[in-house]
Amino acid sequence: MSDSSIPRTRLPDAREFPRFAGVPTFCRFPLIDDVDPAHQPVDWAVYGIPFDGGVTYRPGARFGPRAIREASAYVKPYHLEHDINIAETLSLADAGDSPVRPYSCEDTADVAGQHAESIGDPSHTRLLAVGGDHSIAYANLHATWRRMGRPEKGLAMLHFDAHLDTAGPIWGHTWTHASPFRLGIEHGLIDPQRFFSIGIRGPLNTADDLAYGREHGIEIATVEDIRLRDGRERLRAFLSRLDNAPVYLTFDIDCVDPSAAPGTGTPCCGGLHAGEVFELLRACAGMNLCGADVVEVLPDRDPAGVTALLASHVIFEILALAAMHRRATG
Amino acid sequence: MSDSSIPRTRLPDAREFPRFAGVPTFCRFPLIDDVDPAHQPVDWAVYGIPFDGGVTYRPGARFGPRAIREASAYVKPYHLEHDINIAETLSLADAGDSPVRPYSCEDTADVAGQHAESIGDPSHTRLLAVGGDHSIAYANLHATWRRMGRPEKGLAMLHFDAHLDTAGPIWGHTWTHASPFRLGIEHGLIDPQRFFSIGIRGPLNTADDLAYGREHGIEIATVEDIRLRDGRERLRAFLSRLDNAPVYLTFDIDCVDPSAAPGTGTPCCGGLHAGEVFELLRACAGMNLCGADVVEVLPDRDPAGVTALLASHVIFEILALAAMHRRATG
Amino acid sequence: MSDSSIPRTRLPDAREFPRFAGVPTFCRFPLIDDVDPAHQPVDWAVYGIPFDGGVTYRPGARFGPRAIREASAYVKPYHLEHDINIAETLSLADAGDSPVRPYSCEDTADVAGQHAESIGDPSHTRLLAVGGDHSIAYANLHATWRRMGRPEKGLAMLHFDAHLDTAGPIWGHTWTHASPFRLGIEHGLIDPQRFFSIGIRGPLNTADDLAYGREHGIEIATVEDIRLRDGRERLRAFLSRLDNAPVYLTFDIDCVDPSAAPGTGTPCCGGLHAGEVFELLRACAGMNLCGADVVEVLPDRDPAGVTALLASHVIFEILALAAMHRRATG
Amino acid sequence: MSDSSIPRTRLPDAREFPRFAGVPTFCRFPLIDDVDPAHQPVDWAVYGIPFDGGVTYRPGARFGPRAIREASAYVKPYHLEHDINIAETLSLADAGDSPVRPYSCEDTADVAGQHAESIGDPSHTRLLAVGGDHSIAYANLHATWRRMGRPEKGLAMLHFDAHLDTAGPIWGHTWTHASPFRLGIEHGLIDPQRFFSIGIRGPLNTADDLAYGREHGIEIATVEDIRLRDGRERLRAFLSRLDNAPVYLTFDIDCVDPSAAPGTGTPCCGGLHAGEVFELLRACAGMNLCGADVVEVLPDRDPAGVTALLASHVIFEILALAAMHRRATG
Amino acid sequence: MSDSSIPRTRLPDAREFPRFAGVPTFCRFPLIDDVDPAHQPVDWAVYGIPFDGGVTYRPGARFGPRAIREASAYVKPYHLEHDINIAETLSLADAGDSPVRPYSCEDTADVAGQHAESIGDPSHTRLLAVGGDHSIAYANLHATWRRMGRPEKGLAMLHFDAHLDTAGPIWGHTWTHASPFRLGIEHGLIDPQRFFSIGIRGPLNTADDLAYGREHGIEIATVEDIRLRDGRERLRAFLSRLDNAPVYLTFDIDCVDPSAAPGTGTPCCGGLHAGEVFELLRACAGMNLCGADVVEVLPDRDPAGVTALLASHVIFEILALAAMHRRATG
Amino acid sequence: MSDSSIPRTRLPDAREFPRFAGVPTFCRFPLIDDVDPAHQPVDWAVYGIPFDGGVTYRPGARFGPRAIREASAYVKPYHLEHDINIAETLSLADAGDSPVRPYSCEDTADVAGQHAESIGDPSHTRLLAVGGDHSIAYANLHATWRRMGRPEKGLAMLHFDAHLDTAGPIWGHTWTHASPFRLGIEHGLIDPQRFFSIGIRGPLNTADDLAYGREHGIEIATVEDIRLRDGRERLRAFLSRLDNAPVYLTFDIDCVDPSAAPGTGTPCCGGLHAGEVFELLRACAGMNLCGADVVEVLPDRDPAGVTALLASHVIFEILALAAMHRRATG
Repeated sequence: MSDSSIPRTRLPDAREFPRFAGVPTFCRFPLIDDVDPAHQPVDWAVYGIPFDGGVTYRPGARFGPRAIREASAYVKPYHLEHDINIAETLSLADAGDSPVRPYSCEDTADVAGQHAESIGDPSHTRLLAVGGDHSIAYANLHATWRRMGRPEKGLAMLHFDAHLDTAGPIWGHTWTHASPFRLGIEHGLIDPQRFFSIGIRGPLNTADDLAYGREHGIEIATVEDIRLRDGRERLRAFLSRLDNAPVYLTFDIDCVDPSAAPGTGTPCCGGLHAGEVFELLRACAGMNLCGADVVEVLPDRDPAGVTALLASHVIFEILALAAMHRRATG
Repeated sequence: MSDSSIPRTRLPDAREFPRFAGVPTFCRFPLIDDVDPAHQPVDWAVYGIPFDGGVTYRPGARFGPRAIREASAYVKPYHLEHDINIAETLSLADAGDSPVRPYSCEDTADVAGQHAESIGDPSHTRLLAVGGDHSIAYANLHATWRRMGRPEKGLAMLHFDAHLDTAGPIWGHTWTHASPFRLGIEHGLIDPQRFFSIGIRGPLNTADDLAYGREHGIEIATVEDIRLRDGRERLRAFLSRLDNAPVYLTFDIDCVDPSAAPGTGTPCCGGLHAGEVFELLRACAGMNLCGADVVEVLPDRDPAGVTALLASHVIFEILALAAMHRRATG
Repeated sequence: MSDSSIPRTRLPDAREFPRFAGVPTFCRFPLIDDVDPAHQPVDWAVYGIPFDGGVTYRPGARFGPRAIREASAYVKPYHLEHDINIAETLSLADAGDSPVRPYSCEDTADVAGQHAESIGDPSHTRLLAVGGDHSIAYANLHATWRRMGRPEKGLAMLHFDAHLDTAGPIWGHTWTHASPFRLGIEHGLIDPQRFFSIGIRGPLNTADDLAYGREHGIEIATVEDIRLRDGRERLRAFLSRLDNAPVYLTFDIDCVDPSAAPGTGTPCCGGLHAGEVFELLRACAGMNLCGADVVEVLPDRDPAGVTALLASHVIFEILALAAMHRRATG
Repeated sequence: MSDSSIPRTRLPDAREFPRFAGVPTFCRFPLIDDVDPAHQPVDWAVYGIPFDGGVTYRPGARFGPRAIREASAYVKPYHLEHDINIAETLSLADAGDSPVRPYSCEDTADVAGQHAESIGDPSHTRLLAVGGDHSIAYANLHATWRRMGRPEKGLAMLHFDAHLDTAGPIWGHTWTHASPFRLGIEHGLIDPQRFFSIGIRGPLNTADDLAYGREHGIEIATVEDIRLRDGRERLRAFLSRLDNAPVYLTFDIDCVDPSAAPGTGTPCCGGLHAGEVFELLRACAGMNLCGADVVEVLPDRDPAGVTALLASHVIFEILALAAMHRRATG
Repeated sequence: MSDSSIPRTRLPDAREFPRFAGVPTFCRFPLIDDVDPAHQPVDWAVYGIPFDGGVTYRPGARFGPRAIREASAYVKPYHLEHDINIAETLSLADAGDSPVRPYSCEDTADVAGQHAESIGDPSHTRLLAVGGDHSIAYANLHATWRRMGRPEKGLAMLHFDAHLDTAGPIWGHTWTHASPFRLGIEHGLIDPQRFFSIGIRGPLNTADDLAYGREHGIEIATVEDIRLRDGRERLRAFLSRLDNAPVYLTFDIDCVDPSAAPGTGTPCCGGLHAGEVFELLRACAGMNLCGADVVEVLPDRDPAGVTALLASHVIFEILALAAMHRRATG
Repeated sequence: MSDSSIPRTRLPDAREFPRFAGVPTFCRFPLIDDVDPAHQPVDWAVYGIPFDGGVTYRPGARFGPRAIREASAYVKPYHLEHDINIAETLSLADAGDSPVRPYSCEDTADVAGQHAESIGDPSHTRLLAVGGDHSIAYANLHATWRRMGRPEKGLAMLHFDAHLDTAGPIWGHTWTHASPFRLGIEHGLIDPQRFFSIGIRGPLNTADDLAYGREHGIEIATVEDIRLRDGRERLRAFLSRLDNAPVYLTFDIDCVDPSAAPGTGTPCCGGLHAGEVFELLRACAGMNLCGADVVEVLPDRDPAGVTALLASHVIFEILALAAMHRRATG
């Protein structure tokens, strides 16, 4: 292991290379091959999984990593509310895109999962995957679970989404973008008793759509719970119950209202506003984040680019949570 | 009359026909000709009136029914907040588009009105018209008024709109998209004493723009009344005053802010958010809905499709109100 | 069988229902369930196969049938150059969309193929499938081959495309949108000795990309062959060699230049112009068309709608060829 | 009358006001109120008629003048092929927009026609109207016919269009965007024996769609006539037959292929390319142009702005024809 | 000086010229050359500065004035919340666009500043500049400061923005769109002790980004301060502290969330909603507004036109503040 | 120097990384830092100069390199007409973006020129710059001129453009996107006697716009010269006159018609079609290409992405010319 006392991310010098210049990487982080691990072990690697073969409605999220890399060029490192500079606090890198198998969720989970495990230093580097559809969460979750020492009960989960994504088989396939968390629960990667879902809303197919989640103990805060009822309080209680346990954060952009996030495959009206999302994420400061993903950005339905832009800000907020925990824990 | 004890809407089997497949109908409801009225009399028929010859600014809402049919493919039948499945509670159908006369509001009101009267079983089926510009409301309102037994005082009205739509003649024409409710009041279809307008806001031409409405007793809740003053309380008072009287609901998408509903002919900044709309509509649960329209979606100004999507969710919320009343009244 | 001496397609009366009105069907043809086969057996059925699970680059063609139905509303029935009215010459219908299995080319080929075989009167009705990606051609080709009496040598093929679509396995899958004609040749549905490809152009992966086709006898006319060399003459020779044998026509919209057809998954610059396409198709008058498909329209990349519009005109040109043959042969 | 020996158009000084600056006028010509008629009588006035109440399919051309004014900002005055500077040869002005009556073709023809007659010096100024739908041609044609001394046989016509626009009543209305030339012929404004139509193409409703025109002697050059047959020769013969008689030029942007002119209400594939249009217009050098219009630009369907840009270049080509005639005749 | 007892703005008669007709001016105000200053001295002149040579990321705001003029066509004069008609209370005019030097902020500040000083009656007319990027504020601020009698301490400022715009040199240039208020402070035009900034938010480059402002006494209300803390109260305190001193209002559209204002060069998620902006602006009623600008609208990133529309409503709200002060002070 | 007998470009394995995966580089070439110069000296380096500070109308070309990198992902290495594989014939690399100074053409020419000189092996590697506006050509031209041994008479030039780009000062600046070739001539980098311009067309400001070029001996082939006169023959004569002298090729995308290249800052109707461009470029096979640029792609005006796609194909055609010369000369 190396000296990580002063982790620092090398960002391009904007005096030479304005933010619109250069081969785009996530938030202008260096490519991971350009980071010297002896000097600065990568704390968090952001990488893409350009796969959308698990969708049930509109495809195209395979182009999400591309669009988010571009949109993230104007993301700067200092977080005003948290008063923290993520690039000074953490060593961050873009680990490129994982291999994929466009015709198969399982095969992609397999090759992307293996790839994820090889990123950076498995004993140190944490992983933020950028989709792609929500099925790609499985690969990153699996790699994270291994990096966390394969906890027997599975990882705690914080989940932003319009849909619960615990569906059973669709068109004969168990692996879809609607099922990653059912798979995660069944394969022991997730502890459903410590699983909090924010942003769920209707319309649904049937009242049973949420049954699997509820039966397994998933706690659901609908948009109405957040706005009109006790959703925020329940989130706080959940966070405090965690007691510094590692938490995986999975963020489906469709938790956000189509006004701010039109570019997604199964948009649902009445979602959270960006300000509400940021407030909720910032309320998680102190959480021990062990892995994350941001998924379901579909650039072809995003003519003004606001969805990819928002996704890049969500990545920033997530990394700021990681930085906050690092600062708190040294 | 038929046995309507188990009304049920036959939706396509998504295992065979995914939501992106098939000739598009509103919310994937069956075409009305494919519903056997002996077995399942249609409770609510949704149909288009593709007419925009009454606009004062930007035309194109004649393509609204097309766009909303497409966008509604992902609307599912179960309402999470109301805990009701509209397809299990009601027999629903797409009644196609009405004939129109593109060059004349009056002639269109005439042929569309006659057509509306012929849809389903006039003694049973209720009508939800999809515009088109707001002038099309007249035809549906008229047919509804007849189905309700031509109440002498006219129907009670719940109105979502940025504009009051009680204008006098424009360019020499009495019938425009700005006048349907003046006509409705003058022709006895509407009871202005039981007329509640939500979402009105400026800028206006003059202080007199709202005079006709106020003089006739229309109650106005501007966006600011809803957000900052007693708008919600006054709506509740209005609803409770109705005492189960039949109410016609007319929904102009421009009551919504352009961030969520850019695709409309006379957009007005500072409108309601989707979440506020849903909260207000859900507050009407219990209301005896007798007819409705959703109007002024202009697809050519809706590059991300969010306006048509929102309109399809509003249709769902409206039908959920109908389902709630059905469940309550048996 | 019925009296088909006066086949005629019932189109909506535009005096009542302008072209922008009504649930959209291909070219405003009646839905096949609304055609009385006893009176007018359907000569040609146009139907969608909304599947794009075989693409190698940009997905979204599953929404092709929707977009083409809409764009075709302004297609009228009289062909000026051929001096023929397709609706007076042929009984035409929209047969809806086939079922699909979004995650599998093979499974979709299976269910779509079975569905295709059931459309109309197998001994009489011919099939025009609308994609979807090019993999959907297989199902329609197979059904057509059966309707033609399962000819031992396979069907003659006329192919418009930027790519030859005779690729081997990709990502471990034999069935992709790049392989339908290799499969068709290997399964005996296609006679490669009577297979003419128009519009092929580079860049290619390697010089070997066209090897399979050339080895099996496929005749290729690149765009440059058409414009600068003897492509047109070779097409005429091919047509004359056919001697009234039934021909299947498969049309990938990417044979057209991106200026006129931007909305496709693998666009390639330097393609045919619309006028060239029409001239080439019209040169086929007299050909005994037995089946056809029009594929690879991707609406999300078609902001002005010109690609779907062109596809609808290509459908019209194809049906006009069918009408010409009918008129010639009685 | 004033000294017109040195007609000259005052254009803004781009050293102070770049082409993107300023309230937009057609080609940055001065507003007509800012031209001193004593010094420089306006030779040609360009003005808008923002009306689309006569369309049969997609509305929105009322915004054509706006979009074309903006797009024309980069039109410069020197014509390279004709070697002429229109601003040095002619006094040109933007005469603003005419009044309109949005709900009525007849009423608009009336008020716009009266307005047109009042523009500039009726004994000198010629008129180029910018639509709007094609129905607006009537008003400008009528005013031009009066300015030309009300010629008994009517004016000679050069017509670029995909459609012949000699239809009878539609939805009970004689005045539509499909009928201006039938009205012009019947009202004696047009001499159908000297009427040449370029760009006509199918599909049509019936073989009879062109009957009225042919019966009255209109000469038609379809796109195929221009490209593959003797269209160009026939145009030359027509021009030579005119013998310096005044000619009215009416240009519907839908004569152009949708690749170059997607933004129009009834686009038709297989149209002329921009280069072909320019070649044909330039072949008219020497023609005695007495009036013109450019119509049917629909900005909402023109996401890249190419249609309005092309329309602005067509205006330039038309004014260059006027300049050529001025130079030839002094 | 003239009789200004009945100031009144002449708006076009919409019975003749619908709102979509005519050469576009801001809010359809008359061009300033068409206003008779003897009769109606112009109270407020709105003019464009089409310059974007100071941007650090995405250019294109030079087209802002064009787009806002168009979008403002539907802005009407009566303000519902304030109960005031701006056109009856004030004489308003569009003063066209200022000259610019596209390659230089300084040179543009120079020529635009000189131009601004010449608009209307310097002893009476107040100036609302429409950008362009934020660097254009300097010219208008400077001209306003002179018109206000060159106050020694500088003007009080009310500032809506996502960024503080007090940066030092960028790429070797002191004048950029990020520095107008540093320049204004250093040149004595602005009193930083009476400078209130609303809408500031991260991410920032470093914690020092706000240092210059804070050191000079600028009061900052971040979006979170407005929503979650005491931002509104502090604004009220600031306003009350002003004691009728003249205030310059500068409004960067990027203070608004990208959902409502996507069309801007450096969009930042989590901004104010339109309703919040209006509420804050309306809370300023009574303020002695002496000048204003609205900047950073970038039409090429505004596919639905909502950003330019919002900017036009903000102009209306600003002019309504001016009208309120006029009414209060006579 | 290294063994360059088997130059070869390492492209990503599409079996692992589909063409939509990975940090985008031009045509998926390796980043130059990842090429081992000892083994494979880079023959041609493609790099971006993201600068648009020299434009006279619409800015935004600074985002050209980004968009072209993305669009080029589907460019494959085998050229069908030339029968050559560029990746097997040449060692190709993406050299990232050059530094720029966004506010100054001269400063950018300076830093970009210095950067260009440092790319690869100056004695071996040739340079293809991707703009950015046309002013960026100067830096690449200068570096190429040095690499070619600073030829006294300057380099021969092949120029595709709608404009001649030999303008004098604009807004007081000698360096603009309209002047790179005047500067190149005056600085001795270009031999105007061997300078061939293709695609020039009007409208122009005055007849003098081409005077500088003509006086210095530039040979101009307008679009009409190419299509209707002897343009192609003159190009052949020019090429044959070169006698293997090194030629610099500069390609402004606005030589192409807006139908195929809408996304550019000063589009001009009536340009070349893609097929014509390819035919002309292919006619240059045998030419000794020593450097090149592709400029003026403006992604914000390219909603369907066809302009960036075409630019990527032009890059391919240019590299194929280089490969042809390499094959011919060994």
